[in-house]
Amino acid sequence: MSQKKQLRLGAIIQGASGNMSAWRHPDAVSDASINIQFCQQLAQRAEQAKFDFLFVADGLYITEKSIPHFLNRFEPITLLSALSLVTQKIGLVATLSTSYSEPFTVARQFASLDHLSGGRAGWNVVTSPLEGSAKNFSRDKHPEHDERYRIASEYVSVVKGLWDSWEKDAFVRNKTTGQFFAPQKLHTLNHHGKYFSVQGPLNVGRSPQGRPIVFQAGASEQGKAFAAEAADAIYTRQETPELARAFRLDVQRQLVENGRDAEDIRVFQGISVIIGDSPADAERKYQETAQLVTLESALDYLGRYFEHHDFAQYDPDALFPDIGDLGQNSFRSTTDEIKRNAREHGLTLRQAALEAATPRPTFFGTAENVADGLEHWFTSGATDGFIVRGGTPTAFDDFIDRVIPILQARGLYRTEYEAGTLRGNLGLREPENQFTAKGVHSDALTA
Amino acid sequence: MSQKKQLRLGAIIQGASGNMSAWRHPDAVSDASINIQFCQQLAQRAEQAKFDFLFVADGLYITEKSIPHFLNRFEPITLLSALSLVTQKIGLVATLSTSYSEPFTVARQFASLDHLSGGRAGWNVVTSPLEGSAKNFSRDKHPEHDERYRIASEYVSVVKGLWDSWEKDAFVRNKTTGQFFAPQKLHTLNHHGKYFSVQGPLNVGRSPQGRPIVFQAGASEQGKAFAAEAADAIYTRQETPELARAFRLDVQRQLVENGRDAEDIRVFQGISVIIGDSPADAERKYQETAQLVTLESALDYLGRYFEHHDFAQYDPDALFPDIGDLGQNSFRSTTDEIKRNAREHGLTLRQAALEAATPRPTFFGTAENVADGLEHWFTSGATDGFIVRGGTPTAFDDFIDRVIPILQARGLYRTEYEAGTLRGNLGLREPENQFTAKGVHSDALTA
Ligand SMILES: Cc1cc2nc3c(=O)[nH]c(=O)nc-3n(C[C@H](O)[C@H](O)[C@H](O)COP(=O)(O)O)c2cc1C
Ligand SMILES: Cc1cc2nc3c(=O)[nH]c(=O)nc-3n(C[C@H](O)[C@H](O)[C@H](O)COP(=O)(O)O)c2cc1C
Repeated sequence: MSQKKQLRLGAIIQGASGNMSAWRHPDAVSDASINIQFCQQLAQRAEQAKFDFLFVADGLYITEKSIPHFLNRFEPITLLSALSLVTQKIGLVATLSTSYSEPFTVARQFASLDHLSGGRAGWNVVTSPLEGSAKNFSRDKHPEHDERYRIASEYVSVVKGLWDSWEKDAFVRNKTTGQFFAPQKLHTLNHHGKYFSVQGPLNVGRSPQGRPIVFQAGASEQGKAFAAEAADAIYTRQETPELARAFRLDVQRQLVENGRDAEDIRVFQGISVIIGDSPADAERKYQETAQLVTLESALDYLGRYFEHHDFAQYDPDALFPDIGDLGQNSFRSTTDEIKRNAREHGLTLRQAALEAATPRPTFFGTAENVADGLEHWFTSGATDGFIVRGGTPTAFDDFIDRVIPILQARGLYRTEYEAGTLRGNLGLREPENQFTAKGVHSDALTA
Repeated sequence: MSQKKQLRLGAIIQGASGNMSAWRHPDAVSDASINIQFCQQLAQRAEQAKFDFLFVADGLYITEKSIPHFLNRFEPITLLSALSLVTQKIGLVATLSTSYSEPFTVARQFASLDHLSGGRAGWNVVTSPLEGSAKNFSRDKHPEHDERYRIASEYVSVVKGLWDSWEKDAFVRNKTTGQFFAPQKLHTLNHHGKYFSVQGPLNVGRSPQGRPIVFQAGASEQGKAFAAEAADAIYTRQETPELARAFRLDVQRQLVENGRDAEDIRVFQGISVIIGDSPADAERKYQETAQLVTLESALDYLGRYFEHHDFAQYDPDALFPDIGDLGQNSFRSTTDEIKRNAREHGLTLRQAALEAATPRPTFFGTAENVADGLEHWFTSGATDGFIVRGGTPTAFDDFIDRVIPILQARGLYRTEYEAGTLRGNLGLREPENQFTAKGVHSDALTA
């Protein structure tokens, strides 16, 4: 086996794949977001291809203008729990918001998923960008952007504290003596903080991989700082390898400032791919999918990022409108990018909307072209790996059939799983239990 | 096939089966509560035996004195989601508390489980008896007994309203026209009540069985009234067929008062069973399990029902102590029964504790004896069915191998599933959508 450092891959499960209108594609399974056969097949194919993990995004608020596969989809924890018994090695990463949930419940559900799957659970921590979420959770208002991250920070420290309730070998289960557990290996958190008071202990034993893997998916400064404090992995999207490299270095620098090791985090770039027999063939596939999106639905799509702003009120062929600070309190990093891009390239609203709704895949062309691109990003230190989404309903299969073998032939990608746990496959070390830790990596001790 | 009315059966998944010390039994899988192979085997056996459903209880607070299989167990929703893809027909009923969760999340997770399983989800609504639960959920205090039921009532009406967000045929998914759903078949709840404000719509389409099945498991007057208002099924435990029959008739009477049909609910008696080759053999098996329980652990067990009262402070051989109203705010119906039983039979604390911790199974003896007992309860109108727990680690298998065939031979139990959904197998009709209902069964319209 090659000695080269290996890149890592996650696979998105999200509807028919491709853009918001991909369900209309002739090859699309149009009810994919609520079709368990579809999800199970995708999961099993990804596992055959040795993907590190499946990744399921999430949202807590829809309107009739939401994109189709958000209207009717599986809830992530239940979906990944279901897939846990029909897969053996692949990681299972579910998105769950810290703004509208309880740490005790979330700690339990992820710990339970970790036990069900033999150590393959991951939690993508998000803070819920959509203002409307508050209305579904009996709240007066959506917490503002920076406060959401303060809540998330305390929240995750509580969850980690609960995950440390039981030491690894706490359960002796001695039938003869009748001793079920060793009391000194049970730890009660007794957390009393600004946002949460949680006593514990958790009613689930220590996770097979120590703790489930914590992902973070916000790219604002607050998001990055939070990741450097609490995350094992980041899901981000950068435009160029240079920006991605700077992002990754900045995160690693912050890790070190926090007393962590630069190697304690994995950065993943979210990408979409379209693979053709030639670049022109890939372009044809892209156009075929892009033309399924109407201007009206593209404007709705754009609106969702900006607190459900109604973009239909503007002339679509005038320059992208000045909408002030809108978006700062929701998808901050994404909306900043959309505004910057429109300004720099002098886009009309129509162009900006269609570009947002039908983005040209980051990696595009022949299988060799795509493999070259991935290799370049990876070897230049821009990223530790990629979270892959098909840019058309069949592109993910193309990626597996045509790109993965090239990466393997180049010694950049595994041909067998190294470990049975997600942590093991990501090459991350097991965390110490905060109640017994003696080393310097005691960030959780402040909890 | 027999024309006789059929009894219905649920199977408890809870640790090694038997009492709190059953994990010590030579035949016990001692880590059963967190062992997915164990749970999967039990589920698949129950399905082969045509059980209506699997039933998973739950709790939200442990101390080091909690019974062993509560300390480290799967969370119910994740466990049943996992089992959804390795079973085909059996119902999946998870316990979840309305006192420490959000209606939007719970509506979503059960709807998602229903889609994953093709219409087999059930929700056992509980209000959390344990005071300590508040400490794990950043609450100052545990709501008192009757208020918990008022919260539950509003909560369940919200959940049902969210489950009605989409009509059955709302999703047209017309690839040619680009119409994904019919807007007039989307309904936004806009609930503003005393305890909850929930806008909706839910981001999961209508459940394959209309709505997941709602169980209720409190037997106090408030619990019963709540069941008569909102439940499709009840999980209860009565001492005698006469009491059970009176309970069932009372519930049915209250249903009719609420404008529902007496046939709109299924009452299940929670039972444990021990089967031997002879009554003496069954007695031997019972003694073998009972003797695994120490007085100390029996007192802890008793204490948990009474707000973690410390019973070790009393002389175990004096009469059951006078502890006043303790228990009224937790497991009211259970604690009333323990006190009544101790008083009526003049039990010492030791006797009461051991009786509570190692209850003699309701159905006991040879397979014929057990089948006779079940038949008597069923045909005398005491119950619609039973939720079965093994009184020893092997008793559930004995029940399947030896009792089920007798029930089938007598025409009392199915040899094939009638339907693919839990609702279908329970013989319950599909609820109308509250937003389109024209009939009289419009209890949900008040939501
Ligand atoms: C690549 C990426 C993926 C995201 N995925 C989700 C998601 O699945 N669900 C969600 O609620 N928010 C998601 N977010 C939103 C963030 O978690 C966050 O709530 C919001 O963007 C504000 O954070 P930021 O300003 O730090 O980006 C994602 C953000 C990024 C950058
Ligand atoms: C047969 C039965 C089973 C129950 N199962 C649970 C359970 O699994 N989890 C739980 O929190 N409460 C459970 N309960 C408690 C009730 O749901 C309720 O919270 C408590 O007993 C108070 O209600 P009651 O006074 O109406 O019985 C159960 C109660 C009964 C009678």
